[in-house]
Amino acid sequence: MSTFDLTDHSHRRYNALTGEWVLVSPHRSKRPWQGQQEKPAQETRPQYDPTCYLCPTNTRANGETNPDYQNTFVFVNDFAALQADSPAGSYSKGRLLKAESERGICKVICFSPRHDLTLSDMAVEDIRKVVDLWQQEYLELGALDYINYVQIFENKGQVMGSSNPHPHGQIWAQSSVPVEPAKESAQQLAYYQENGRSLLADYVQLELEEKSRIVLENEHFVALVPFWAVWPFETMIVSKRHFQHLGQITDKEKDGYAEIMKRLSAVYDSLFEISFPYSAGLHQSPTDGQEHPEWHFHMHFYPPLLRSATVKKFMVGYEMMGNPQRDITPESAAERLRSLL
Amino acid sequence: MSTFDLTDHSHRRYNALTGEWVLVSPHRSKRPWQGQQEKPAQETRPQYDPTCYLCPTNTRANGETNPDYQNTFVFVNDFAALQADSPAGSYSKGRLLKAESERGICKVICFSPRHDLTLSDMAVEDIRKVVDLWQQEYLELGALDYINYVQIFENKGQVMGSSNPHPHGQIWAQSSVPVEPAKESAQQLAYYQENGRSLLADYVQLELEEKSRIVLENEHFVALVPFWAVWPFETMIVSKRHFQHLGQITDKEKDGYAEIMKRLSAVYDSLFEISFPYSAGLHQSPTDGQEHPEWHFHMHFYPPLLRSATVKKFMVGYEMMGNPQRDITPESAAERLRSLL
Ligand SMILES: O=P(O)(O)O[C@H]1O[C@H](CO)[C@@H](O)[C@H](O)[C@H]1O
Ligand SMILES: O=P(O)(O)O[C@H]1O[C@H](CO)[C@@H](O)[C@H](O)[C@H]1O
Repeated sequence: MSTFDLTDHSHRRYNALTGEWVLVSPHRSKRPWQGQQEKPAQETRPQYDPTCYLCPTNTRANGETNPDYQNTFVFVNDFAALQADSPAGSYSKGRLLKAESERGICKVICFSPRHDLTLSDMAVEDIRKVVDLWQQEYLELGALDYINYVQIFENKGQVMGSSNPHPHGQIWAQSSVPVEPAKESAQQLAYYQENGRSLLADYVQLELEEKSRIVLENEHFVALVPFWAVWPFETMIVSKRHFQHLGQITDKEKDGYAEIMKRLSAVYDSLFEISFPYSAGLHQSPTDGQEHPEWHFHMHFYPPLLRSATVKKFMVGYEMMGNPQRDITPESAAERLRSLL
Repeated sequence: MSTFDLTDHSHRRYNALTGEWVLVSPHRSKRPWQGQQEKPAQETRPQYDPTCYLCPTNTRANGETNPDYQNTFVFVNDFAALQADSPAGSYSKGRLLKAESERGICKVICFSPRHDLTLSDMAVEDIRKVVDLWQQEYLELGALDYINYVQIFENKGQVMGSSNPHPHGQIWAQSSVPVEPAKESAQQLAYYQENGRSLLADYVQLELEEKSRIVLENEHFVALVPFWAVWPFETMIVSKRHFQHLGQITDKEKDGYAEIMKRLSAVYDSLFEISFPYSAGLHQSPTDGQEHPEWHFHMHFYPPLLRSATVKKFMVGYEMMGNPQRDITPESAAERLRSLL
């Protein structure tokens, strides 16, 4: 009988950051694919699109006109999922039905006035201006007394539900801490209380020694495929220094963060030679007025593609009813991404 | 200031079955959609397709030939994500990297020899034969001493990653209890210990009194849109009697179960006048040799469509980084489904 081997045998991996598990089936990557194929967006886009509601000087659905912005531009989402004036209140029936009013603010951030760019095409100093704006928004929104969590994210590509190719992201800021960061809070806190150190600082240390899951790094940040990655080419950008949120980032770290985002997204684009779709998001400490020394700033990238520009990983039946499942190992995904550097 | 109203204001709802939350934004359903559109499969299919690897008498990729089956047909998945012979073992490094070997068996179940049918087209007595097979498989696989959980599910439609329209489902049976049923186990156990009753029995009672989220019912089962539904037209079929798994279902209940699946899938098909895509799955007690009096048999339906045959709900940036979010309320979804009866 052979001995257990992560590169050959079906196994479960523990996600130290959420406390959940993922099923890994390395032997399954040879499965043929006869299902749905995606249509990658291949058009070349103009620098300015008169019909785009995010381009400078254009008018949006609600009648407002965008300024002739030169770098970034932020505005409150015209179709916000959260309302700042949702009246306080709750609803319950028996022990089983429970709802609570949720206040919040949703914003849209244009990364560039240029309709034809993505983060990977932008100059590092222009991405740095996006980081500056993220910082400002995290601090301003987080300072509102009814905002206890600020979620910054980007949906890139039609396959990720993005309805406009103009480079942009979103911010949803709200009263309660959503489910995913709440899991990460609990795991990081337990680790911090037990070891007096940041979970992710120790994790990054370990990964830098192992090397097999590192994609790239610079002085201040590491981009790696987490040991517990769910999406085929999922990555995480983690700060080498232990800090909690963008309010604490240094100027030099901001440059390093912009630089690693540019390089990582360029590697992604070269993987299947298309503008690579993903959802990405920053995880930082809640803005609930507490210190949160356990929190460690990081950013997740969840790209849907599996084998090519047209074949994605479907997180469906088993994944929805059981738990996530992946075919290629995180180590081979990292190796493939590294080979494109 | 207006008072908090579930039909108007952004709020969070608690999922009593998993302990997690969903963000509900009722005011947002008017948002225009400019993003990706799905292509619904509109072709008429032949009763027998010589190129289909699930049709009777055809040969599969591994060289095996399907029997000329008359009702259902089950076989071990040719590209199984779980291996029965995965050697025992575990891997760990520090406190942060943890993996365990996972043994299991993956099977495919053809619901009918007819290539052109779906559950909604099949006669109740033929669906009943699928239930018989599910029961048999749950008991047989569950009796293996290394199988502690049996996940039965169906991915229907290309948009749900199904690569073959022949009516079929899958079973993934494995050593550990996956994340989602483990959450439901914990919630049901806590409720049972506190109240001495089944969480879902009390919940169904409450819903039958409220009526607003019921889609349909018969003597033995209820189909409803859960108070905490995530997907726009998500439903759950729950048994009225409290039993743990298909090993305990009566003959009459089997008929009722087949009947309610047929009616529910027919309602789904009439919603957007297409063969309605979804992932569906049974949740029942683990097969770990314990009693599990807390467990209550049920089935989830997670359909991806939101507004029409071509516009789906994207669970992306905020949903991946934060928690699920929905626009239309569960109550209005249930009303819409009821109106099609
Ligand atoms: O039906 P298949 O081809 O095995 O695969 C499909 O269902 C599986 C179980 O939900 C998923 O892991 C795959 O991503 C999906 O494509
Ligand atoms: O960018 P939009 O149009 O607001 O919407 C997109 O992102 C949201 C946040 O992840 C999702 O809730 C929507 O389903 C998706 O289409």
